[in-house]
Amino acid sequence: MPVDRSLPIPLHVQVEELLLSDLDAGTWQPGERLPAEPVLAARFGVNRLTVREAIASLRRTGRVVARQGSGTFVATPPLRIDLDAAGRPAGDAARTAMATFREPVLDVRRTRLTGEARTELGVDEGLEIETLALLSDAPVMHTVYSIASAATADEARAQLDGPWLPDRFEALVGTSLRSAWRAFDAVPARRHEAALLDVEPGSPILRRSGVNVDADGVARTFHVRAYRSDRLRIVLRD
Amino acid sequence: MPVDRSLPIPLHVQVEELLLSDLDAGTWQPGERLPAEPVLAARFGVNRLTVREAIASLRRTGRVVARQGSGTFVATPPLRIDLDAAGRPAGDAARTAMATFREPVLDVRRTRLTGEARTELGVDEGLEIETLALLSDAPVMHTVYSIASAATADEARAQLDGPWLPDRFEALVGTSLRSAWRAFDAVPARRHEAALLDVEPGSPILRRSGVNVDADGVARTFHVRAYRSDRLRIVLRD
Repeated sequence: MPVDRSLPIPLHVQVEELLLSDLDAGTWQPGERLPAEPVLAARFGVNRLTVREAIASLRRTGRVVARQGSGTFVATPPLRIDLDAAGRPAGDAARTAMATFREPVLDVRRTRLTGEARTELGVDEGLEIETLALLSDAPVMHTVYSIASAATADEARAQLDGPWLPDRFEALVGTSLRSAWRAFDAVPARRHEAALLDVEPGSPILRRSGVNVDADGVARTFHVRAYRSDRLRIVLRD
Repeated sequence: MPVDRSLPIPLHVQVEELLLSDLDAGTWQPGERLPAEPVLAARFGVNRLTVREAIASLRRTGRVVARQGSGTFVATPPLRIDLDAAGRPAGDAARTAMATFREPVLDVRRTRLTGEARTELGVDEGLEIETLALLSDAPVMHTVYSIASAATADEARAQLDGPWLPDRFEALVGTSLRSAWRAFDAVPARRHEAALLDVEPGSPILRRSGVNVDADGVARTFHVRAYRSDRLRIVLRD
């Protein structure tokens, strides 16, 4: 199907949408190579540069991947992980996938809090703990936890030794915590985050924010997570 | 603070991040006008075109808005709507905000289902109902509901007359429904969606997918929603 030159829409945008329709319809399967640029150019009635621009955009959003010297391939769909109401992997497939999940701590710092962390926690200073979660050693999620605690960065580092991060935060604040709220939005990747997640700055990023409170309902931790939606899809089972 | 020309990072990207830091820090309040291009160019040590490019990118993600002939203004933050566990507005502020919410039906069609809708519902044909939700008359959410039902488009249109869309779907499938799962991801806006939501194609869009099942656990409706995160922020209270 050729592009429609009578439309006031850039040709590369039209080509991208036609390719997306093919990808959605399963014309090419994950791992399969896309037809070469001249073939696609002929099919859509455009030049190779237009095809190249459309494919570059699909690459930025993770729908296709380029392999040096061998072409463009349909990307593997994101790994779907089903979580039950308690936030634990539900089903064997989810547990198997999570077996390769780990969340190393990148940095622990005592700092002046800003923005939403400061508003939500109602304190000027706290701990910031930055992690990068990996699934089969590939980055999928970057988190900055802000914690209302008087501990120094060194004290916090010592406390963070253990298998499950949420438990370690309870040790850090000295009380049990429960989730107060969660929110999702979509934002363009910032430079620092883009570098950690190995995407181009500006790629769409799923952001999840939330607050955990103590038994008295006082907000103790605030976190902002950035997910690579093209690699990981969290499904919340009701 | 000028840009750092020794970094291998495009200057407009550096300027955008510096402006984002200012916006996050509240240097300028919502509704306030940003300094003029020459002022920002001098501050960052770049030319006006670089500033213009950085601001265009901030505009695409809804952080600033341009007003013809009068400059660039800090955008109003997204309206935050708290929902309780049952999915209903929690608190007076949320209820007041939701008073201006409506979800007109754009189209009802009987169609061959494709992609995830077909996989999840396990049928080849069904109804597609497309809506565009408005908050204070501004588009915030585009939804395509796919429904496993033998009804014709005309029959469905007649059934869809009523105040609350989920209730109308129960009438349409002839049984009560409950949510089976929900998932969130971030995607670039496609052309059709971008036009409806009044954003540029490629802007980051929060997508929410989900399935509703009947009393026997059979999937009856599948939906994909695209939210304008810069206008609406849904907060799920735990």
